[in-house]
Amino acid sequence: MTHSIAILGASGYTGAELVRLIATHPTMKITALGANSKAGQSMAQVFPHLRHLDLPDMVKINEIDFSSIDLCFCALPHKTSQEVISALPKTLKVVDLSADFRLRDPRAYEKWYGNPHAAIEMQKEAVYGLTEFYRNDIRNARLVAGTGCNAATGQFALRPLIGDSVIDLDNIILDLKCGVSGAGRSLKENLLHAELSEGYHAYAVGGTHRHLGEFDQEFSAVAGRVVQVQFTPHLVPANRGILATGYVHGDAQAVYDSLANAYASEPFVEVLPFGETPSTRHIRGSNFCHIGVVGDRIAGRAIVVAALDNLTKGSSGQALQNANLMLGEDETMGLMLAPVFP
Amino acid sequence: MTHSIAILGASGYTGAELVRLIATHPTMKITALGANSKAGQSMAQVFPHLRHLDLPDMVKINEIDFSSIDLCFCALPHKTSQEVISALPKTLKVVDLSADFRLRDPRAYEKWYGNPHAAIEMQKEAVYGLTEFYRNDIRNARLVAGTGCNAATGQFALRPLIGDSVIDLDNIILDLKCGVSGAGRSLKENLLHAELSEGYHAYAVGGTHRHLGEFDQEFSAVAGRVVQVQFTPHLVPANRGILATGYVHGDAQAVYDSLANAYASEPFVEVLPFGETPSTRHIRGSNFCHIGVVGDRIAGRAIVVAALDNLTKGSSGQALQNANLMLGEDETMGLMLAPVFP
Amino acid sequence: MTHSIAILGASGYTGAELVRLIATHPTMKITALGANSKAGQSMAQVFPHLRHLDLPDMVKINEIDFSSIDLCFCALPHKTSQEVISALPKTLKVVDLSADFRLRDPRAYEKWYGNPHAAIEMQKEAVYGLTEFYRNDIRNARLVAGTGCNAATGQFALRPLIGDSVIDLDNIILDLKCGVSGAGRSLKENLLHAELSEGYHAYAVGGTHRHLGEFDQEFSAVAGRVVQVQFTPHLVPANRGILATGYVHGDAQAVYDSLANAYASEPFVEVLPFGETPSTRHIRGSNFCHIGVVGDRIAGRAIVVAALDNLTKGSSGQALQNANLMLGEDETMGLMLAPVFP
Amino acid sequence: MTHSIAILGASGYTGAELVRLIATHPTMKITALGANSKAGQSMAQVFPHLRHLDLPDMVKINEIDFSSIDLCFCALPHKTSQEVISALPKTLKVVDLSADFRLRDPRAYEKWYGNPHAAIEMQKEAVYGLTEFYRNDIRNARLVAGTGCNAATGQFALRPLIGDSVIDLDNIILDLKCGVSGAGRSLKENLLHAELSEGYHAYAVGGTHRHLGEFDQEFSAVAGRVVQVQFTPHLVPANRGILATGYVHGDAQAVYDSLANAYASEPFVEVLPFGETPSTRHIRGSNFCHIGVVGDRIAGRAIVVAALDNLTKGSSGQALQNANLMLGEDETMGLMLAPVFP
Repeated sequence: MTHSIAILGASGYTGAELVRLIATHPTMKITALGANSKAGQSMAQVFPHLRHLDLPDMVKINEIDFSSIDLCFCALPHKTSQEVISALPKTLKVVDLSADFRLRDPRAYEKWYGNPHAAIEMQKEAVYGLTEFYRNDIRNARLVAGTGCNAATGQFALRPLIGDSVIDLDNIILDLKCGVSGAGRSLKENLLHAELSEGYHAYAVGGTHRHLGEFDQEFSAVAGRVVQVQFTPHLVPANRGILATGYVHGDAQAVYDSLANAYASEPFVEVLPFGETPSTRHIRGSNFCHIGVVGDRIAGRAIVVAALDNLTKGSSGQALQNANLMLGEDETMGLMLAPVFP
Repeated sequence: MTHSIAILGASGYTGAELVRLIATHPTMKITALGANSKAGQSMAQVFPHLRHLDLPDMVKINEIDFSSIDLCFCALPHKTSQEVISALPKTLKVVDLSADFRLRDPRAYEKWYGNPHAAIEMQKEAVYGLTEFYRNDIRNARLVAGTGCNAATGQFALRPLIGDSVIDLDNIILDLKCGVSGAGRSLKENLLHAELSEGYHAYAVGGTHRHLGEFDQEFSAVAGRVVQVQFTPHLVPANRGILATGYVHGDAQAVYDSLANAYASEPFVEVLPFGETPSTRHIRGSNFCHIGVVGDRIAGRAIVVAALDNLTKGSSGQALQNANLMLGEDETMGLMLAPVFP
Repeated sequence: MTHSIAILGASGYTGAELVRLIATHPTMKITALGANSKAGQSMAQVFPHLRHLDLPDMVKINEIDFSSIDLCFCALPHKTSQEVISALPKTLKVVDLSADFRLRDPRAYEKWYGNPHAAIEMQKEAVYGLTEFYRNDIRNARLVAGTGCNAATGQFALRPLIGDSVIDLDNIILDLKCGVSGAGRSLKENLLHAELSEGYHAYAVGGTHRHLGEFDQEFSAVAGRVVQVQFTPHLVPANRGILATGYVHGDAQAVYDSLANAYASEPFVEVLPFGETPSTRHIRGSNFCHIGVVGDRIAGRAIVVAALDNLTKGSSGQALQNANLMLGEDETMGLMLAPVFP
Repeated sequence: MTHSIAILGASGYTGAELVRLIATHPTMKITALGANSKAGQSMAQVFPHLRHLDLPDMVKINEIDFSSIDLCFCALPHKTSQEVISALPKTLKVVDLSADFRLRDPRAYEKWYGNPHAAIEMQKEAVYGLTEFYRNDIRNARLVAGTGCNAATGQFALRPLIGDSVIDLDNIILDLKCGVSGAGRSLKENLLHAELSEGYHAYAVGGTHRHLGEFDQEFSAVAGRVVQVQFTPHLVPANRGILATGYVHGDAQAVYDSLANAYASEPFVEVLPFGETPSTRHIRGSNFCHIGVVGDRIAGRAIVVAALDNLTKGSSGQALQNANLMLGEDETMGLMLAPVFP
């Protein structure tokens, strides 16, 4: 049986990545591509790397007949996303890649995103899309909220440690290094090649990055108390990849065991042998997340490093993984593509 | 039915690319990985990006039991390749990725590679592996010689024009821009990131690049007379990709028609609308080749630009395409992966 | 004696490069920085890499008191430039970095730039700023028109050959590879790091690039007949640098001798030993141009390769070289900075 | 008066960077270039970007007449350096760029570098070359030990804070991001462009990086007690630059004031306005270090970010700064080159 798929926001990087992945998915077929600003154009015009595919042209979202759609990916900006999804049929399965339904508390949403939430009922319905930890809820969900790409990486590194109480909850530092595609296809001076290439810097320093809303929500829920991490993202001259370096107080072997145990059966999360750490080059273009643990020379301190591809496991690959579950398919279907190296 | 596959020279970039592609191939299974220098190591140690795969460890080539192998890819350096292949069972299907069996004339081989050929009989037997032009021979071949990656790109751009007599055979210039992975994983100063990044240069200028042996052989055969092109490769700071800019004397529309006609039914070669030219970013990681034609302001001159990924369509993807034919499978099996962009 | 310098258009890359170079110039002092869109801001805000310098804040151009200025660099976009320069005092020495005064024939200007020229009298007055060939005129000029960066590179490679009649004037091909900073700090999708990094492509294919106006004008003037070259620029993933590969019909040794002779006394143009070719990495950040010549395997064909930094020798360094002459200083003053490698 | 300068180890990146900087130094002249492996070659052969300079050819170190040398830079690998310097005239001023004389305690040297020190007397004599903190000693020193490039960056960020007791000495984390030129011109697989470009990773995780020897020595000396920091370097795909992100427990304003005060008169260390953080792109190719401080959302925590160019301020620029002092020149002479951006 083939599932009929719509992608809204098909003209951005996460939309294109969804198309790339679904292109070789055995049971999904893209039947509608919505992109208001590019309506009337073919995918080949907007993304020439997809020109070999037999795809519908892009149309305005309100021109799509959703009655024939089995599942809809929504890769629109936040705020737009909640407006669009509110107007969709209430029975349509939706995987949202925006930030709009990640935070269960509307006040948290307003705090981090600056505007009141306009679809509070749906926000309650939404399931947080970190597959490895919400698998059962996702299987039965109608609306799944894809996580932030940084938030996914940090949680893969730290979440089991908090749940297993093997680290000090008041001394968690997460130093993140992100490739530039996470910023999307937006025209900003600091995203120009001439600005970014051969240079790198920290941004949103001091606890102002919006993905902290997700860390706070999830880590506090797991711990059963308020947990706040320090989180500094850095922009590095690479297109894909997130490397999260976590500094924790705890026994390194206990930290390792916690992670190894948590991910022992996971198809996409690989814990490297103790003492080895991952590289973004080894997960590029794939849905895999590699995690490593090293003990520091200072006793009682450990370093956890996690790497994933922000566009795949951090966003569109995660979305497809969730969609597989929602459609009753094997979670890994279409997602076992090997990383592209070099 | 599953084909049992061996890869010799698995520790190089083309070997790793073969593994990446075969990983999702429906009817091939890798049962032996040969790499003398890394024998005893697992693929995950040499190429951590492939650690999720269930692969045999690397062994010395002479330890492989070839009686159970259906097809063997040989991704060894030239000269080594002819020695190794000579020692394999004479009935084993082989796709060689080295330069050893590309040139039908042993004197040409010796001229371009500096040593006499040591397996002249097999050289006669080998079929030149440019699938789109040798498809029928490849289907029945035992030994197929994969083309040079530059040679493939240049031929996709120019070969139909020579066959159709739409260009002046004495005024063909091919200016090529190659990514660095084509040079392999060899430790050379000029391949260091600190040397190459942010800088680019011509090399093998003046007609000394070995792939000219292939151009001379193939273009002359097609034309029925000696054809010599001018060919200058350039190394640019990118990992994958070849962009060939061809300057020809001929009518641009006739040039376009020749190419459009030649590739009308090809699954991997896409001729862009007249006046558009390709980019390496739109074929990266895939088996596609994009070709564009533009007429120059000087009447009677045309520019042909072709782009492909040197590791995929230029090497390992082409090898898999040929292997599919040799094993009676659909030529595109396992190769329809979309390019990875951004 | 210190010369008082104004820079108009200080918020672009060529403006910043002028400031960088003048920062260590012994006899120039920047006393006014004009940038209408950034008026009121300090240079450190717009270009933090210049924050150590004691510079005037940026002001609107019409707020500058030009009576105290000895020389004015104008790094504004074309069309704006002719308007602004028309309104400056008619005695003020001006080095214009835009395209507005490069083409002596107003019809050529209109043809290549799409709008009629609005300052035809000044266009007549302007001297073409290719220092090595217009040195004496520049010394006495009031208004010097900086060349296009591609136009400079191509002329360094080919101009002596045309003047010395050592090549066939009807078979000249110039294949250019440019870094991205030549496109300026403009917000265009194809200049984003995620688009450009790891990919490259041809643009303005077929003879539509505006710098052809300069090639046509200069090469025809030197030859005493109409000369039209074929010219294809390519955008490569690097920030600085232009590499021009010229294909000419002529004796390689005669080609070499012509270039070696032309540049024998030039401080900034270095002709490499016969058979060697340059790399952009070896001129980055400097005012040097390296040129190499190789004979092709096809008798009577030669390849000339020239490399320079588009922001320095191709633009702001050239401008400073010309300003030195106009102010009676040694031409090399402040410009002998060594390239930055790696 | 012109100082006669020798550079030993001229064929490496720090040697080439010294030549680049000295090329425009008003009172230094390079009279000898020692490089045993490249003896007999010209600098232009080994580093074509320096071909415009009038330099002596490289010779074997033992062929240099040191009696005419005023100051010798030694840019050799550690261990070799102590052997070579031991054999130099005992009155010759030497700036060593290796690790051999950085650690005052021979046991510390042996612990971090794996071999006993063979010139313990000289090690005692050597002054640690972090100019801003050892200025007076350096002025009178005969032998100055250049710091590690990571060690310099971390100390610029943290040293005043330790001296001023504004942070908790037991909770200091230093997460460093380094460009690849810091690894030198050595032929290692992980330094290849195809490996490194578009990928990044942590290395020497857990407190095993040798520069920790310097941190331990210096921070403990300043604090008057043992101080151990956590330090994780990361290799990012850029050629030049180090970005150090320091996580400290302390009042952010006090942290800022400590740094602002420490560097108020420093010509090369710039403390950005409170709340701003630096980028490596803004110090590339220069001797400047930019530092920023931000308070975290968690009260009592601050983030300090420092950026410098590993080859300049982190190595050869620092060496020249020290040499200026040793020769009685102004400390900034020849070093006020503006950063190269873009």
